[in-house]
Amino acid sequence: MFDSASVVHHLSAQRYEREVRTLRTKLLEAQFRLAEDKRFPVLLLVSGVEGGGKRETVNLLNEWMDPRRIRTHAFEEPTREERKYPPLWRLWQRLPPKGTIGIFFGGPYVVPVVQRARRLISKAALEVEIARIRRFEQLLTDEGTLLLKFWFHLSQKQQRARLEELESSKKTRWRVGPHEWMYLESYDRYTGTAEHVIRATSTGDAPWVIVPGADPRYRALVAGKTLLDSLEERLSEKRPARAPTTAAPRAARIDELDVVRALDLSQSLSREQYEKALEKWQGRLAIASRNPRLKDFAVVAVFEGQDAGGKGGAIRRITQALDARAYEGVSIAAPTEEERAQPYLWRFWRNLPSRGRFTLFDRSWYGRVLVERVEGLCTEFDWMRAYGEINDFEAQLIENGTVVVKFWLAISKEEQNKRFRAREGTPFKKWKITPEDYRNRKKWDAYQLAVSDMIDATSTEVAPWTLVEANDKHFARIKVLKTLVKAVEARLEKG
Amino acid sequence: MFDSASVVHHLSAQRYEREVRTLRTKLLEAQFRLAEDKRFPVLLLVSGVEGGGKRETVNLLNEWMDPRRIRTHAFEEPTREERKYPPLWRLWQRLPPKGTIGIFFGGPYVVPVVQRARRLISKAALEVEIARIRRFEQLLTDEGTLLLKFWFHLSQKQQRARLEELESSKKTRWRVGPHEWMYLESYDRYTGTAEHVIRATSTGDAPWVIVPGADPRYRALVAGKTLLDSLEERLSEKRPARAPTTAAPRAARIDELDVVRALDLSQSLSREQYEKALEKWQGRLAIASRNPRLKDFAVVAVFEGQDAGGKGGAIRRITQALDARAYEGVSIAAPTEEERAQPYLWRFWRNLPSRGRFTLFDRSWYGRVLVERVEGLCTEFDWMRAYGEINDFEAQLIENGTVVVKFWLAISKEEQNKRFRAREGTPFKKWKITPEDYRNRKKWDAYQLAVSDMIDATSTEVAPWTLVEANDKHFARIKVLKTLVKAVEARLEKG
Repeated sequence: MFDSASVVHHLSAQRYEREVRTLRTKLLEAQFRLAEDKRFPVLLLVSGVEGGGKRETVNLLNEWMDPRRIRTHAFEEPTREERKYPPLWRLWQRLPPKGTIGIFFGGPYVVPVVQRARRLISKAALEVEIARIRRFEQLLTDEGTLLLKFWFHLSQKQQRARLEELESSKKTRWRVGPHEWMYLESYDRYTGTAEHVIRATSTGDAPWVIVPGADPRYRALVAGKTLLDSLEERLSEKRPARAPTTAAPRAARIDELDVVRALDLSQSLSREQYEKALEKWQGRLAIASRNPRLKDFAVVAVFEGQDAGGKGGAIRRITQALDARAYEGVSIAAPTEEERAQPYLWRFWRNLPSRGRFTLFDRSWYGRVLVERVEGLCTEFDWMRAYGEINDFEAQLIENGTVVVKFWLAISKEEQNKRFRAREGTPFKKWKITPEDYRNRKKWDAYQLAVSDMIDATSTEVAPWTLVEANDKHFARIKVLKTLVKAVEARLEKG
Repeated sequence: MFDSASVVHHLSAQRYEREVRTLRTKLLEAQFRLAEDKRFPVLLLVSGVEGGGKRETVNLLNEWMDPRRIRTHAFEEPTREERKYPPLWRLWQRLPPKGTIGIFFGGPYVVPVVQRARRLISKAALEVEIARIRRFEQLLTDEGTLLLKFWFHLSQKQQRARLEELESSKKTRWRVGPHEWMYLESYDRYTGTAEHVIRATSTGDAPWVIVPGADPRYRALVAGKTLLDSLEERLSEKRPARAPTTAAPRAARIDELDVVRALDLSQSLSREQYEKALEKWQGRLAIASRNPRLKDFAVVAVFEGQDAGGKGGAIRRITQALDARAYEGVSIAAPTEEERAQPYLWRFWRNLPSRGRFTLFDRSWYGRVLVERVEGLCTEFDWMRAYGEINDFEAQLIENGTVVVKFWLAISKEEQNKRFRAREGTPFKKWKITPEDYRNRKKWDAYQLAVSDMIDATSTEVAPWTLVEANDKHFARIKVLKTLVKAVEARLEKG
């Protein structure tokens, strides 16, 4: 793995100066085109052995290019705040938007490598981490990110020489502590583990680049030129993202029956029943949500449903029972410019509740496989892969202890029509209804199909969909409340 | 996951007959076009709960189509013979060639699901299996396979009814034993594990199709139509395989120095030294290779090197010490027609040694990242992903206990020229030299680059490359012999 990188390279000062002059001009040019086109982001992951020149090289890259369009972030041990979220959360927070360059020190690789090298986690647990990383990177490259991964390598001999050199100068002595010497002593173990992770995460879309770290001039040029070559190659491409040509198979439909159509929408509650139940379940929610043990986990509730399905009303029946400081309602409409410059899951990652809090999503990440699919706002490949990406996303929430409840509020086409008419007739509800709502009705069947596919692909044991028969608002609101309360209570009991 | 599939569907006999008539005609037509074009193979993985109609449906598919172009295989518990190879070996042996349809019952999914449901393996071990399956499937779809995965589902209630129905008839009673009832009893556990595996292996390229298994007519139509739709969609595409548009980054080259060029090719042995050493190492190889404990593992030796690098001579010095019944020499030239109809790794899987045996590959799977890369016989995406695929392949061999040694025989350009001239001057060696050999010399630098990349990407702790300075044939042959002997002896000691 590190064979070439252990070869000793030397570069004369003159040759270096000459090469750097050309390189800087071209890098700036490429960076400018990247910012102009805003077609994709560049993410550079930087890892490697101590003393291999990671810091120095990244500083040089910042010097050579326009540093305002580069954001560098070092991932050290997670902070207390960061520990409140799933491990990948802090990476999502700092993904570079399209048109810019992000540099991550460490990234998702370092923690598992260190843990495994110290035998704090099992071999199988390391494989699980590797699989997670591969899926995260796959998502990024499928979304169009130009992903570069640099590993700065030193042989053990080179590393020892480097540490001694740093120690011998007053200016750099502070950089060498017992920590650094310890790494050197267990060089083989760390490098062996790193080698395994590098190999297992080198894919055709995002292989690792091994940078020989011993000669400062040489490594700087390798890093700079690799970045330049990849950027130029990518900028010269016409198409924005990979086009899949193997169409994914989908189950054929024989009849019109599916899980949504099989619902009994006639279920209802009288006003009296409703008010009694409302009092009961709101009371239990108020108590549960104020339980001190709630600080150990977050609650995410997702509301999807046809237009006029009653999502807003159901959400209000929940928030009435909650302390205003304990929850956040997130209403998902068309993405903002900032959000469009990121992978589609980004805006949900940024809105996740931290522990002890509720977030209620009025529409959600499922837009990808509903409206975006039906309206052709993304390709078939995009929404097909979204099922897996969404399952991965929710699995991370749940592993982190979050309670995830998901509601589909189902109404009949007739009931929707009745509600649209009623809204038009009510002055203070008229704003809710637009010509678009009627347009969407024409695609009713396409939406039904998308909903049924969505539920099949993403209703899982750990994050099941609750299908809510919503022709009767009373019945729907109570079913939502009750499901949420029971999920939270079950989680509290589990402790 | 199984929400839609648990809905009860019914289809009248008349409607079924009508639909089947059309379906059969179209399926036969599509199958004929597939056989004509020979652009890709179809692999249909069939799994699901007992009594869900797997067998019946596959029988129907065979009835509806031309059964000579369908090969069905049921993967039960591995046989004793199969256990001598890595777990995926038996799947590789039965991959359908381009232009045909293969149907696998069970496939790679069943064993891990059953083991996990019975808690014989840990959760992390299951994740490792899932990651392995994803990579295997990724390779198949990247290679152009149309991969369909059908899961035949029954709810627990439906399954109980089905088993009772089978038991009540004399004709089918034999199909229900204690095994089947046991599955029913632990329905939740099996289905929960299966759900997890299905979810984790549903990708944008190869998602699972959940087939509702309760109604025989309905499930047959779903299976048949899904197959037809996918086939027709794929057949109508112009491009043979997906085109990657995100160019993968590669390390920039600054100087001409790499791991191969850094070798000291002047190393040599006198005839006397050589003969003494040859006797010693051939003797040790003879003893090691006859060790009874060798029956526990296989030995794979790979020989790569420039033309006239002396691969043949080095291999002969090994085989001289081996029992002719204990080894096989495999010489890799251009693939046969049969081999071209399969993923490129197929012909190596079929030539693997079983335990207790040596296989010596004169050229190997590394052709993908050497000659195929340099001569443009595959796309950049193809050879970039090959590094990972090759590492996966070798990791499976090693996990299975195989000793893997890999030799790169390096000679200088001058030495090669000398040998070419000598061959031309020797009547019995003249056939070895063709105009192509001189053409290849023109691409010397491109090959050097490919070799260096190959060694960096695939020299791993478990399967390292041995670089052999081969300007002197004596030196080279002894280094090869010694390396092989030490690897085998180390493995024997490990036991």
